Amino acid sequence: MRQYPRPLGKLINELSRLPGIGGKTAQRLAFHILSLPDTEAEALAASITEAKHTMRYCSVCGNLTDQDPCEICPDPARRKDVICVVESPKDVLAMERVREFDGQYHVLHGAISPMDGIGPEDINLKSLIIRLQQNDVGEIILATNPNIEGEATAMYIAKLVKPSGIRCTRIANGIPVGGDLEYADEVTLLKALEGRREL
Amino acid sequence: MRQYPRPLGKLINELSRLPGIGGKTAQRLAFHILSLPDTEAEALAASITEAKHTMRYCSVCGNLTDQDPCEICPDPARRKDVICVVESPKDVLAMERVREFDGQYHVLHGAISPMDGIGPEDINLKSLIIRLQQNDVGEIILATNPNIEGEATAMYIAKLVKPSGIRCTRIANGIPVGGDLEYADEVTLLKALEGRREL
Repeated sequence: MRQYPRPLGKLINELSRLPGIGGKTAQRLAFHILSLPDTEAEALAASITEAKHTMRYCSVCGNLTDQDPCEICPDPARRKDVICVVESPKDVLAMERVREFDGQYHVLHGAISPMDGIGPEDINLKSLIIRLQQNDVGEIILATNPNIEGEATAMYIAKLVKPSGIRCTRIANGIPVGGDLEYADEVTLLKALEGRREL
Repeated sequence: MRQYPRPLGKLINELSRLPGIGGKTAQRLAFHILSLPDTEAEALAASITEAKHTMRYCSVCGNLTDQDPCEICPDPARRKDVICVVESPKDVLAMERVREFDGQYHVLHGAISPMDGIGPEDINLKSLIIRLQQNDVGEIILATNPNIEGEATAMYIAKLVKPSGIRCTRIANGIPVGGDLEYADEVTLLKALEGRREL
């Protein structure tokens, strides 16, 4: 088989290394990029370089930001006494979309997973403990993912923090709004039952 | 909703303009790019810039290439008397994957489509006619797509070329190999019947 011309092959190869982008999609994207006006292709390349250069982790909460500390941490409109602990910066964005939570965040950048050799010292946990010691925090909301690793991480943090008298809460499990009982798995349904509330 | 930090928002926005990349995928890709080592993100950005700068169209056949003329046109191992006419550079790659065709190509960069205001003068047709006049070509294989525009284009070229005595052939329609009669549409099945061959 005749190869792609080298620069095109390189572009396809680079694109196909992105998650969820297979060979065919990479080829389609590459041909699309080549068909773009010069300025648009340049803008795409520049946005990669710029984002990579300017985005960093907030030294306080660990969230992705282009300034340090991030926008949220020093915001006077936000409560300082509640910290929501999440696994990744994406989860911060998801929480922010709710428009309801007005406290602080702490991003762990992972979850405890002994199977993968990830222990408590491998996630951004030490800085959370320091934050709790240095600030007057009344509650931490453990919003790690509701899977084995996320649960284990939440349990671990709760065990660590509770002795200091700080309230530890865990986000609720249950049927997603708009979801269908029929298609809910047993564990979720059980959690929904256990978490039932008086109307 | 709190916005993404600006450089991240810009990257997500640029990525989401690519075909088939929606908002969610763009966000996932952007976060992945930020998690890459600097060198890999740079390599991706550089491959876009480089491909965009070095790739051009072959002045003979119109194929995408990083040298002019392209690799195929001057190749002494390839027959000069057969030209396969395709709509796009992607089609050249598809044909090359067959490893069977050893002639020349001509890329039209589109197909005649009166509905979209694309006439014969809007595709790379004039240079094909000049090639046919200047070279000793015995056959052109019309491998435009088997849809209305591709068929119209093939018909148009055949009508234009046939008077000069050059053989015009059209690639066969039929059931794809590995396909299923049950799922074939009527037109394809009709074409497959019409094109049946003695065993």
